[in-house]
Amino acid sequence: MTILSVTRTVSFAAALAFGAVAATADPLPSWNDTAAKARITDFVDAVTDPGGSDYVTPADRIAVFDNDGTLWAEQPLYFQLIFAIDVIGEMAKDDPSILTSDVLKAAAKKDYKVVLAGGEEALVEVMKASHSGMTVEVFQARVADWIVTARHPDTGLAFNQMTYQPMVELLRYLRDEGFKTYIVSGGGIHFMRVLAEDAYNIPNEQVIGSYGMSEYKLIDTVPTIVKSPAIGFNDDKEGKAINIDRIIGKRPIIAGGNSDGDFAMIEWTTAGDGPRLGLIVHHTDADREYAYDRDSHIGRLVNGLDKGPGMGWLIVDMAKDWARIYTGQQ
Amino acid sequence: MTILSVTRTVSFAAALAFGAVAATADPLPSWNDTAAKARITDFVDAVTDPGGSDYVTPADRIAVFDNDGTLWAEQPLYFQLIFAIDVIGEMAKDDPSILTSDVLKAAAKKDYKVVLAGGEEALVEVMKASHSGMTVEVFQARVADWIVTARHPDTGLAFNQMTYQPMVELLRYLRDEGFKTYIVSGGGIHFMRVLAEDAYNIPNEQVIGSYGMSEYKLIDTVPTIVKSPAIGFNDDKEGKAINIDRIIGKRPIIAGGNSDGDFAMIEWTTAGDGPRLGLIVHHTDADREYAYDRDSHIGRLVNGLDKGPGMGWLIVDMAKDWARIYTGQQ
Repeated sequence: MTILSVTRTVSFAAALAFGAVAATADPLPSWNDTAAKARITDFVDAVTDPGGSDYVTPADRIAVFDNDGTLWAEQPLYFQLIFAIDVIGEMAKDDPSILTSDVLKAAAKKDYKVVLAGGEEALVEVMKASHSGMTVEVFQARVADWIVTARHPDTGLAFNQMTYQPMVELLRYLRDEGFKTYIVSGGGIHFMRVLAEDAYNIPNEQVIGSYGMSEYKLIDTVPTIVKSPAIGFNDDKEGKAINIDRIIGKRPIIAGGNSDGDFAMIEWTTAGDGPRLGLIVHHTDADREYAYDRDSHIGRLVNGLDKGPGMGWLIVDMAKDWARIYTGQQ
Repeated sequence: MTILSVTRTVSFAAALAFGAVAATADPLPSWNDTAAKARITDFVDAVTDPGGSDYVTPADRIAVFDNDGTLWAEQPLYFQLIFAIDVIGEMAKDDPSILTSDVLKAAAKKDYKVVLAGGEEALVEVMKASHSGMTVEVFQARVADWIVTARHPDTGLAFNQMTYQPMVELLRYLRDEGFKTYIVSGGGIHFMRVLAEDAYNIPNEQVIGSYGMSEYKLIDTVPTIVKSPAIGFNDDKEGKAINIDRIIGKRPIIAGGNSDGDFAMIEWTTAGDGPRLGLIVHHTDADREYAYDRDSHIGRLVNGLDKGPGMGWLIVDMAKDWARIYTGQQ
């Protein structure tokens, strides 16, 4: 054997070994080897196989996911609402006269119970007080500061450490397989965009959500976009399907959520022709995360459990299907 | 010289030749060699030079363009309005009772003058009658049929042949240089998306525009999005900047338009930090296209001419700067 042929043999063996590693590398290491994981990888294999009958061209590989309760936690209340309450506390330190109602006074004391007891009206008041009357840049700087300094009341983690590791892996896996991944959430666009790039590798233009009205103004001759108190669009329920049609203009082939607010989006997605995957993250893990569904005041899930399986949706059982929960916790 | 070294020499020469061709290939062959063209290529060279002080990372290379009068013609009236009038004529053949007003009767006779004389109220009536009460799919099938069968009253060309060759080249050039190209137009999203992919290589999710309200409905148990008559968003003037913030979430570095409806979008774009390019297509070519600006009922351009140059905007003189106009005409 000449030196040349030895080199060739070694390279060939190395290539084989590398190929074997690549073929067996697990794209979803934080998912247990249950039927849920197989369902996902089988679906992705089918739509990316150019010779298969279920092949979908990359331009149509659109995957949409809710954020709160689907990509990160949402208990004891939506993280954006915790942010809003924190902002009111900060604002009140500078100017206590902004606390013009009992709800705002409760918010300044971080009394979540009183705020929640006030129902939707109270929540809108808290959101308006904390989310309007400033430029988009000023607002986003506040969010960026909060996201690294604030801590979750139950876990003590920063909020961006409470994204779900299995879902972050799923997003990356889908992108590696030619999908365009979108957030379609009831959360606010300006809020979510501050963290979506770092947390999920999802750029601003793939973050769809709720928004308030805004105004284009010249402030000292500088063109500026200022956030107004009026509600612009509530990206929830049927609004999610309508917003996907407006902004993406294509029916996704994968949609994932965790509550009845995601029902229409998943229903519309899975009703399309050809292969479709609907996915519900079911919060079943009181030990590692939270367990809630039908009776929860946040993330209520009834229709998804009652009708989803009959439409072929995958119900992910967090306790059973996920080996790990938070990105910030091994 | 061995065979091996001959092969190497030939390959090297071929590589040199290929490199030389690539370096001198003109990305904008339908632009005359005027200052306008140099301004564009200088800008692109600057923002794509990794060693330069004006370098912009690909994720932030966002370029937005108006459609009517910027990427395709808009005279004697917006093409979408010609479509709307044609649709009313077709609908009336099946059911003349839909012609419930003088405006709709005029539309059915393609009497543009009477429709235009009715002002905005008449235009809204024509748009509602032709653009609502059907699913998105049915509407888009009508547009797809119209775009290949209808002919422009002045040129006799199909409407998608009246896209501007120099702008199609500019879009392609920008994408080749790592830009993401968007349409941001007063035109309707569902209308424009039917042609944007073929005409401009711009996918649905990069088409931003006006829209009517829509409803999510189960029709015979099938989840469907139906177009409603109510106006949803008018993507014009300040609305263009607001919509870019909402949907893209980044301030573009290039914005192009042709009328005062584009002023705020270009103003907001060029007011950002770092290198920015604002561009106005000025309709100066009565021989090959149309000549209009300050006094036009369509595509009125006053602010752009008065204030644009002072803000460093490039005013493209169609007669002088463009060697060719329509994609469908040599």
